[in-house]
This record gives sequence, structure tokens and C-alpha cells, in this order.
Amino acid sequence: MGVPCVALLSEVLDMAYLADTFREACPDIDLRLGPELGRLDDIDAAVCWFPPHGRLAALPKLKLVQSLAAGIDHLIADPALPRHLPLCRVVDTSMTAGMKAYVTWAVVEQQRRMRAYVEHSAASRWKEQPFENPRRHRVGIAGLGQLGSACAAALAGIGYPVRGWSRSAKTDVPEGVTAFHGAEQLDEFLSGCDTLVCLLPLTPQTRGFLNTSLFAKLPRGAHLINVGRGDHLVEADLLPALDSGQLSAATLDAFSQEPLPADHPFWADPRILITPHIATRTDRQVIAQQTLANLALLQQGQRPPYQVDLERGY
Amino acid sequence: MGVPCVALLSEVLDMAYLADTFREACPDIDLRLGPELGRLDDIDAAVCWFPPHGRLAALPKLKLVQSLAAGIDHLIADPALPRHLPLCRVVDTSMTAGMKAYVTWAVVEQQRRMRAYVEHSAASRWKEQPFENPRRHRVGIAGLGQLGSACAAALAGIGYPVRGWSRSAKTDVPEGVTAFHGAEQLDEFLSGCDTLVCLLPLTPQTRGFLNTSLFAKLPRGAHLINVGRGDHLVEADLLPALDSGQLSAATLDAFSQEPLPADHPFWADPRILITPHIATRTDRQVIAQQTLANLALLQQGQRPPYQVDLERGY
Repeated sequence: MGVPCVALLSEVLDMAYLADTFREACPDIDLRLGPELGRLDDIDAAVCWFPPHGRLAALPKLKLVQSLAAGIDHLIADPALPRHLPLCRVVDTSMTAGMKAYVTWAVVEQQRRMRAYVEHSAASRWKEQPFENPRRHRVGIAGLGQLGSACAAALAGIGYPVRGWSRSAKTDVPEGVTAFHGAEQLDEFLSGCDTLVCLLPLTPQTRGFLNTSLFAKLPRGAHLINVGRGDHLVEADLLPALDSGQLSAATLDAFSQEPLPADHPFWADPRILITPHIATRTDRQVIAQQTLANLALLQQGQRPPYQVDLERGY
Repeated sequence: MGVPCVALLSEVLDMAYLADTFREACPDIDLRLGPELGRLDDIDAAVCWFPPHGRLAALPKLKLVQSLAAGIDHLIADPALPRHLPLCRVVDTSMTAGMKAYVTWAVVEQQRRMRAYVEHSAASRWKEQPFENPRRHRVGIAGLGQLGSACAAALAGIGYPVRGWSRSAKTDVPEGVTAFHGAEQLDEFLSGCDTLVCLLPLTPQTRGFLNTSLFAKLPRGAHLINVGRGDHLVEADLLPALDSGQLSAATLDAFSQEPLPADHPFWADPRILITPHIATRTDRQVIAQQTLANLALLQQGQRPPYQVDLERGY
């Protein structure tokens, strides 16, 4: 096994920020960055974030397609993705902490009306809001993967009654979380979500998951938090649901188009909190370490721990 | 054991809101409310929230002094408090949920700079703040009683490195929380608190705990959250600590004088978030149930579960 040759590929992000971290993790690495990749048959692994379509297929000796993060929809979107190659996500437990902090904050922010207190503090106003105990506010997490399970456990730890839903039954549901699964249990799940958090993977089945028909199955006045992908939400369905009162508020961290265009109607609506896809971040060192470890395992004929099953899409 | 006779005593709160709940819990209760208490030697128990000084001492057959909440400083402040009588706090696990939600929100609000995102959303601005992983932000909880331990566990569950400090050593420290105790370990505790949460009981020893000398022992730029009592903080010491940069922000839910006077300098400072003593609320039903259960236990010669040790002050 010689010096690893790793390409950093993205159409939307300047991947140069990763170069030093890869060189610290492997001082003699052969790192390829930017439009000119040099001899393509040198390249062993490609670290990707929305890579140019067709680029991966042009790397004849590629052994590993490594996503920069947990999501892999940006890879599957490439019609020329070499699907026979091992494809790995980054699983970063410190990223989980960022997501837990964001989701917990967003739940409490709405449930306890904290924004009113922030505004009153700025206006020198001592005024109590009605108190609703967290024990009486049901939070549902759609998606019980690494991030969804972690958020469910954190919210249960605060005292919210937490339920989770996943496509298939889970064996490792966190303590205190009521689990639902499959299409047949979706309506029952939704009927008990005063706040609904979307942390599903983006697959053809979950694209447009958050739509008028789903909103109608939530308790009236529910709060929607989307920390999945922008395309989980049918954007045109959100404002009508807020206007009708079926939803009371939405906290959105992901959008079909990012940055969200300046003239997008979501910006003007005070019931929608927009954050610029910051719920969490993958640690640079973890990306470099997992990429290099995955490549080494594959070169030894072993299966990396976070390899994706492309049939399931996650 | 006859019909219980319970007086509701407060100088600052209209206790009438409790009457229906007590009557639901015990339909034939003899409830005494307001300045005219009737025959004083009927009264078995007094439910108190800042009771008029001397009033308890004037009840000759009193068997139980019941605080409305977890705090008992409002009782000890009465120089004529009949100290030989059993004094109980309310321990309301659903109140714990409110406190966990508030404290978690306040930690994340500052640590992740969520207020900037709220402001940017209102201003149609897509702008990322620097990301600091919760794993690298140390939270310290001063006070590891019921509420402090619960908050420590909730924050550890999100991924914050959590430490706790209490006067005496604790045997039931939550998993993942580093415990410190006593005066000799206080400085070491403080040196690792990027956020410091005060959840101490108010005793002569802890009055003025949050002062210039303590702030100097925190990491520079620490965030202070006071959800204890207003008198834990030397109010005159806060603005200088913020001006010097020793503290970066303060979230305060309790004040020496409440409501906080309109001309108080805290209001005008954008680094201070003021909330009107709303971190949590004791459930009415829990107050009624525990008062009646405590009285029944005492009449059977047993010790109620949440009786306070007046020597320790909590």
C-alpha cells in the first residue's frame, strides 16, 4: 500500500479548507484539489460534496467515494455515479452534539415562547407568558438514524414526551422514546407531534415528505422543524399551512436552493425562522481520519464501518 | 384525623389561584385564605410564599410549614419562624422539566449565537456564525440539588462537557458529570466553566456568591446564567464584569427586587437577557397533593420525604 492519493471534489464549496487537515493526518498524502486533478488513474479516494456530475466516473482506479458528511443525496444525484464502488458517509459524534443543541434550542424556543422574552428584555418589559410544562408538549422525530436517535434522547432527557418514526423498525430506540415505523404507523405518529422534527435521509420516498397532506395529520398549531434536506419540504405548501393555523411556526435550516434567494417569500414571514444550514458541522479532523481509515480498510479487503447501502439509500 | 385545615399565606402573591386545586384534592378541606384566617388554633398546615412575618408563629396548633416551591429562603427570612416545626419544600419533577428546558435553551442561545440567527432571519440575511462544537464548551452547574443535577444531566445528554459543584460531596452525581465540592475545590471548578449556571439554594453562605472575585476565576468571556435567587448575585458587580470582558453575557431569571424596577440599569444592557422569574413553575396539583400527604404523614408520626434540614438551610 503506497501513498494515498485523495481528490477533493465539490461544485459548491471551496474544499481547500480541508487540505491542511488531510496533510496533518497523513503528511505524505498526494492531495488533488481543484479543476486540474492531474493523472486521474492515481486517485484512490474522492472526498465529495456535490461533486461535478461525471467526474467520479472518470477516475479509473477509484476505490472509495467518501461523502463529506452524513448525507449522500448529493452523490446519488450524479447519474454517472459509479454505484459498484464503496460509498461512505462521515459519522461524526461531535456533529451529533451540534444537531442536538440546535434541535433542543429550536423546540424550547417555540414551546416556551422564548423569543417573546428576548423581545421584552430589550424593551424593558417584565411580562410573563403562559407556562406550558414540557411534559405536556409532545415532540416527534421523523427519522431515527444516528442524528434522529440522538435528538430524541436529548429531548426525552429534558422531559418532553418524545416519539420517533422510521421507515423500518428499529432495535436501538433510545429509552423513553415511543417508536413508530412504516407507512401504516405514520398517521398515528403524526397525530401526537406538537413539534415535528424532520431528520429523515433524503430518498425518492422521502422527497416532499413535508406537505399539505402530512401537515393536516398533525395536531392543529404544530411547530415544524426541518433539519433534514430542503427537498423534504414542499415549499409551496408551507405558507398556506401557517396561514390556516394548521402550523403555528416553522424553523428551517435546509432549503431546496441555498443560500435561500433574497426574494424568497419565507424571509418575510415572522412565523418562519430561517437559519443558513448551520444546525451542525462535520469536524474537519473526523473527515480526514475517516477517509484515510476507510481507504486503508478497503485496501485490506475489509468493509468500512459507515459504508452506505445504495439499495436502501442510506 | 379530622378534616385538614390549611391556610394559604403570602404577602406577594394572590394565593386564591390554589383554592380550587386544594378543594379538588380534598373536597371537605377547611381552607383559610386572606388576611382574616378565622380561629387560628384550627390551622394544621400553612402553605407559604413570602408569608407575613410573625404570622406562622401565631398559629398555635400548626403541624406543617409548607413552602409553595423548592425555595425556603422566603420562610427563613421570617425572624419569628417556628423552627421546631417540620418545614417542607415542594419537589415537583414536572417543574424540573421546565428548568431543564430553560437552562438548556439559555446555554445554547449564547453558545451557538442563536440570537444572531433570529435577527438575521428577520433581516433576510443568510450569514453563518463561527461554529463552536458543544463538545468544546464547558458548562458548570453550581448547586447539585434536584434541579441542578437534572440540568447537568440534560446538558451532558446534548454533548456539553458538564461539571457540577456543591457544598458537600454528592453520591448521586449524574453520569458524565464531573463533580467538585467544598470551598477547596471551588476555584478549580470555576476555572472550567465557559458557562456558569447558578442553581444553589439561598443560604447565608451563598448570598452574594456571584461577585467580582468569583467572576475573575471563570475563563475570560464566560456566560453567567442565574436561575437561583436574585440575592445570589451582587448586582453592582455584574456590569463591570461585562464591561471588562471577563463575562460576555448574562441570562438572569431572578432578581433581588421583582419585578425588576423599570429604571434598573440591567434593562438597557444588550448583553443581559432578563426573564421575569419564569424558568419554571410548580404545578398546582403537586402543591396540593404534597401538602396534604405531608400533613397526613406527620399526623401519623412519620417524616415527610421533602422535609428541610434547617441547620443546613436546604
